[in-house]
Amino acid sequence: MISKAGYRELIRDLKYLKISAVFFLILGFVLVLGLNLSADEGMYPLSEIPRLDLQSKGLKIDPALIYDPARRSLLYAVVQMGATGSFISEDGLIITNHHVAFGAVQAVSTPDKDYLKNGFLARTRAEEIPAPGRTARITESFRDVSAEVLGVIKKGMSSAERAKAVEKQIKKIVAEAEKANPGKRAEVAEMFPGKSYWLFLYTDLKDIRLVYVPPLAVGNFGGEEDNWMWPRHTGDFTLLRAYVAPDGSPAEYSEKNVPFKPRTYLKVNPEGVKTGDFVFLLGYPGRTYRHLPASYLAFEQNVRMPAVADWYEWQIKLMEKMGKESREVALKHDVRIKGLANTMKNYRGKLAGLKKLNFLELKREEEKKLQRFILSDPRRQEIYGRVLPEMEKIYARMAEEFPRSFILDNLRRSVLTFQNALMVVDAVHERQKPDLERRSAYMDRNFQQAKKRITLTMKSSFYLPTDMAIFKELLKKAAALPDDQKIEPLSQFPGLEGKMEEAVERLFKSTRMSEAKYVLELMDKKPEEIKQLDDPMLKLAWSLYPEYQRMEEINRARKGLLDELQAKLVEVRQAFLGKQFIPDANGTLRLTYGRVEGYSPKDAVFYLPFTSLKGIEEKSIGQPPFDTPAGILDLIRQKKYGQLVNPELKNVSVCFLYSTDTTGGNSGSPVLNARGELVGVNFDRVWEATINDYTWSQDFSRSIGVDIRYVLWIMKEFAGAKHLLKEMGIE
Amino acid sequence: MISKAGYRELIRDLKYLKISAVFFLILGFVLVLGLNLSADEGMYPLSEIPRLDLQSKGLKIDPALIYDPARRSLLYAVVQMGATGSFISEDGLIITNHHVAFGAVQAVSTPDKDYLKNGFLARTRAEEIPAPGRTARITESFRDVSAEVLGVIKKGMSSAERAKAVEKQIKKIVAEAEKANPGKRAEVAEMFPGKSYWLFLYTDLKDIRLVYVPPLAVGNFGGEEDNWMWPRHTGDFTLLRAYVAPDGSPAEYSEKNVPFKPRTYLKVNPEGVKTGDFVFLLGYPGRTYRHLPASYLAFEQNVRMPAVADWYEWQIKLMEKMGKESREVALKHDVRIKGLANTMKNYRGKLAGLKKLNFLELKREEEKKLQRFILSDPRRQEIYGRVLPEMEKIYARMAEEFPRSFILDNLRRSVLTFQNALMVVDAVHERQKPDLERRSAYMDRNFQQAKKRITLTMKSSFYLPTDMAIFKELLKKAAALPDDQKIEPLSQFPGLEGKMEEAVERLFKSTRMSEAKYVLELMDKKPEEIKQLDDPMLKLAWSLYPEYQRMEEINRARKGLLDELQAKLVEVRQAFLGKQFIPDANGTLRLTYGRVEGYSPKDAVFYLPFTSLKGIEEKSIGQPPFDTPAGILDLIRQKKYGQLVNPELKNVSVCFLYSTDTTGGNSGSPVLNARGELVGVNFDRVWEATINDYTWSQDFSRSIGVDIRYVLWIMKEFAGAKHLLKEMGIE
Repeated sequence: MISKAGYRELIRDLKYLKISAVFFLILGFVLVLGLNLSADEGMYPLSEIPRLDLQSKGLKIDPALIYDPARRSLLYAVVQMGATGSFISEDGLIITNHHVAFGAVQAVSTPDKDYLKNGFLARTRAEEIPAPGRTARITESFRDVSAEVLGVIKKGMSSAERAKAVEKQIKKIVAEAEKANPGKRAEVAEMFPGKSYWLFLYTDLKDIRLVYVPPLAVGNFGGEEDNWMWPRHTGDFTLLRAYVAPDGSPAEYSEKNVPFKPRTYLKVNPEGVKTGDFVFLLGYPGRTYRHLPASYLAFEQNVRMPAVADWYEWQIKLMEKMGKESREVALKHDVRIKGLANTMKNYRGKLAGLKKLNFLELKREEEKKLQRFILSDPRRQEIYGRVLPEMEKIYARMAEEFPRSFILDNLRRSVLTFQNALMVVDAVHERQKPDLERRSAYMDRNFQQAKKRITLTMKSSFYLPTDMAIFKELLKKAAALPDDQKIEPLSQFPGLEGKMEEAVERLFKSTRMSEAKYVLELMDKKPEEIKQLDDPMLKLAWSLYPEYQRMEEINRARKGLLDELQAKLVEVRQAFLGKQFIPDANGTLRLTYGRVEGYSPKDAVFYLPFTSLKGIEEKSIGQPPFDTPAGILDLIRQKKYGQLVNPELKNVSVCFLYSTDTTGGNSGSPVLNARGELVGVNFDRVWEATINDYTWSQDFSRSIGVDIRYVLWIMKEFAGAKHLLKEMGIE
Repeated sequence: MISKAGYRELIRDLKYLKISAVFFLILGFVLVLGLNLSADEGMYPLSEIPRLDLQSKGLKIDPALIYDPARRSLLYAVVQMGATGSFISEDGLIITNHHVAFGAVQAVSTPDKDYLKNGFLARTRAEEIPAPGRTARITESFRDVSAEVLGVIKKGMSSAERAKAVEKQIKKIVAEAEKANPGKRAEVAEMFPGKSYWLFLYTDLKDIRLVYVPPLAVGNFGGEEDNWMWPRHTGDFTLLRAYVAPDGSPAEYSEKNVPFKPRTYLKVNPEGVKTGDFVFLLGYPGRTYRHLPASYLAFEQNVRMPAVADWYEWQIKLMEKMGKESREVALKHDVRIKGLANTMKNYRGKLAGLKKLNFLELKREEEKKLQRFILSDPRRQEIYGRVLPEMEKIYARMAEEFPRSFILDNLRRSVLTFQNALMVVDAVHERQKPDLERRSAYMDRNFQQAKKRITLTMKSSFYLPTDMAIFKELLKKAAALPDDQKIEPLSQFPGLEGKMEEAVERLFKSTRMSEAKYVLELMDKKPEEIKQLDDPMLKLAWSLYPEYQRMEEINRARKGLLDELQAKLVEVRQAFLGKQFIPDANGTLRLTYGRVEGYSPKDAVFYLPFTSLKGIEEKSIGQPPFDTPAGILDLIRQKKYGQLVNPELKNVSVCFLYSTDTTGGNSGSPVLNARGELVGVNFDRVWEATINDYTWSQDFSRSIGVDIRYVLWIMKEFAGAKHLLKEMGIE
């Protein structure tokens, strides 16, 4: 502790300070505050808000203003669009991440009009470009349907039967809800698998247009190199606009459509936040796995993640090599590389972080104690005694089968021609069934969307030599499987031993599975018609189809069993730890709160929570991904800060850190200050926070947002988009 | 500024702090202090001490205790040994860097007794091992001899004549001084070239022995990866002992020798320092170039450094490849790789740093103003008007000739067999001359040492395939020279065009220039005898000898001219800037002072000034250079801190940062606290501080030392070297 004399000395010395010195003092001071009033683990369903006492944490508005279905609450300003976005004007203007809109921008880019590289600004509404395949989903309401869902389970059902019954019941609930609410989408989300289910009603806006996209060198500044990293200087934001039919109902793109009028939209606060400030996020975090057992984590850490990371790295290198041929070919791979690299780096980060925290060991220790707790009471032993050992067994089995299922999985995931062929075979079989019994993608309500995706993917991302090379690599992996795991139709592949290369080239020369239009036509045919066709890729898919069906059957049975065990595990762990859990993230709307604060990534290093324009200049080397446009560098050198200075830095802040609890899907989430005003756009987590999927740490879990001041600075000083600033209520 | 209410709030909030939070507050607070009472540029000759007012900067002892030839001042505790070391016991115990003693440790290591890898501890004095080739030099006194040196210059002398006259006069002064002071070494140092010369008298101790060497994984932890970097966790220290003849006079190794009794030695303070503390260093910094013109810097930045960095990188890769054959071969290359990599990374750091500071442009700007100042006065114009343009011309010419001189230079520097051959040719010619007219290495006073070095180098570092590969590469470079720069004897080399490989292999098969004993024999022969010998490498050296003589002649003339111009430049710049300069570092004893403080290497990152054992655990991955011995990791995990805790970290501090002004040669310098007690051993600078050779920056210039607490911790907890701690006065 500091002595009284120490304080006096401190204050005396403060008299001699320069501002830059004060900054460090404020830093120390705020860190101190931060350590006391810090954030908590938690991606809270909105129904939890009343229990959180957010005002004691720093919120300065009535929490009901965030979530109250009866009011124009903030909830209605947040949209799901793959990740998250939010309305920032009464005319349906949406702010989200550059990387969320990346695929759409790429799809409308050509070497001539390279919006991806150069950016895009619509000077008028007429210039706004339809963003192919984009939708924006608004959460309208939700309610607990656990009783209805679980009510269909009957004693004596096998795991597979139980899973099937639950699946069917969910489809039924969804169908009924959509019937009762015309124009809405219904979805049932598992909150706690096997235990708790909620029905969500959504509005899906289907006409989304590009309004402002910064140049790639801003929106993706630092690229894969800086991804998952701090310090960060990425202007990862894009502006879109939602359109609806003239009557206000959701509609596909039409010239007649008009801007959507959201029930509420966010006020943009150009003053941003300062170190130590309370912030909160609304968004759609994808998946976390915090309630799963150590045996699951062991499977992920020792088997699945290392294999996937290596495989993605191989694909990235391949695609980068292919992309050197021309800018056109490179454009085809951009989105795929971005996706693969993102996951790869995330996995590597997780593996490093889990090791650093020794998390698996800690989890095993906890489970040992939990198991002792279970066995210490005969009744508990009877109900829960087998839960952990059973789960252990299932994950061990999955590890055994992994090399085989990995090949089947990646064949349909990474080889687009095979993916199409399998979709055809799958569709013609599934479409024979009654709608409610089909797998989700083939139900009437989804089928058109699935078809659209094929057209889009083939147009924007297909390159035959890449497809063929991936196929070859997987064939090689298949050839290396042990005898008892061999995949028959692949083993019989002509020339797998011997002239494999030639055989594959012949196959790719004669298949038409790269023609989207043809593929879509086939999807509407009968199985018998497909069986007779001579396309070799289609034939391969046909012969592998039973394998995939068997795999799905196993997975379904396994899920049924795991859900049941998982539900019990959550129950007994809650009893053991004496607290209620928040459900793992599952793609539904959540709130998380924290503070603006830095962290220490390693011994003797401290990361401050704001970056500045100075850092852009430091990093810019004139080559991607650090090729800042000359216009921006000029503005930085001329110190044209446009009244957007962060007083802590005496510079415009670019990105910032805060201790909220986020995961993938929170991309584009609005970062809101204590008054619920927009002060940033969330786009990433730091490397150490990739472990968020398994656990949360006050020391390391920091999310990264682009500071609203940088967003406004780019739009005002660089893009000259004053009409949009005005629309957002900024001078 | 913080408001009064802010202070009150700060103090109120302090009541709720945990210690870890206090740490950040202290940090902020000390940073604040640091920014006011910060260090200054300056490697001060000790005669400057009375003018520095060190007590107002933080020194708490009489400055005369540092340098007063009449007293047992700290000066006498510091030795030059390649870099720097210091006495830490009355029995001649010396502490220096692991990397300073590296070559000696390597030379006594074998695959069986691998002291380099495993470390070495002498349990008794009898076990102490002679460190081949090591000496320890004590500065006895110095005086200004500028008048005597410059007195020999006569009007009308050419530059070459002037340089030769000065050189001869210096040799004369040295010879006279050594005659007048038997047993002492005399050396004349250029303080300001062409302007100011000092005569130093030294005592050279020649029997140096290894006492304690930590394992490579401690002494070189982080290796080349961490070199020039922060955060650092290297235990870069080694203990040696100086021995003398029983009568106290310096002597070569003998069993009869006894430990040297230094006039004074440093008190070791196991409490170390804390953030913000005043520290100072004594040491022998090698070379700085702060007073040289922009044209010199341009030559370095655009021509010499990039070429050398690339060439060293090529050599490193070659040697690493060769080293994979066996541990024995790898040992042969260790010292060379370390040296090459060190310089390469230093150059790359400088190039990055100079670019970052835009230093060349800034220097050019200053010189433009200086030139205007010169031209503004007719008398100044007459004396100084041509200084900058003339220097510009000389450096431009050097740039032109660079590719050619680079090859000649590296042929004798990197190809050891050729180096030996050239030494033979050189020796037999030089040894014909009167002693005072020979080049330094061939004067009687140096010749034995030069010969010893050949034996040592060939034993410890020679590997024929490496020598041959470097030779080939240089031949290729020579072949690529433009016609008017061709090096005749190399162009005529049989098979340079065509079967070069074979010819080189024949050459290396038939030369005996790798046999040290034979080479030494030849060095004592007459030129006629050498000319008749049939050794092809010797023949090549003979034919290139005139080239080297010509090159030396040109260099000497150029130096004469540059010295004259440089002296004028310093004069007029002092007048222009209105201040006196401190001479550039030149390998003579200097003092520099500063504070323990961190720094911000880049936007949003702050480096704290202490690392801890925690960081060793974080970095250790079980593979070199991060392969911490299991025993040390166990001690860290068991938190065996042995009363050596740094209260700021609640852990043992390992390395630390301070804002002194250092360069190569300061390695091993004692880091002294305000009372002149040893608190660390200097061993490196941060990456950003590689620019120290050209300029000093309060923002970036930080030196790195190993904290005395880590030194003591390793010796006490890991090595169990209690007898040495006792000798150092530690419990």
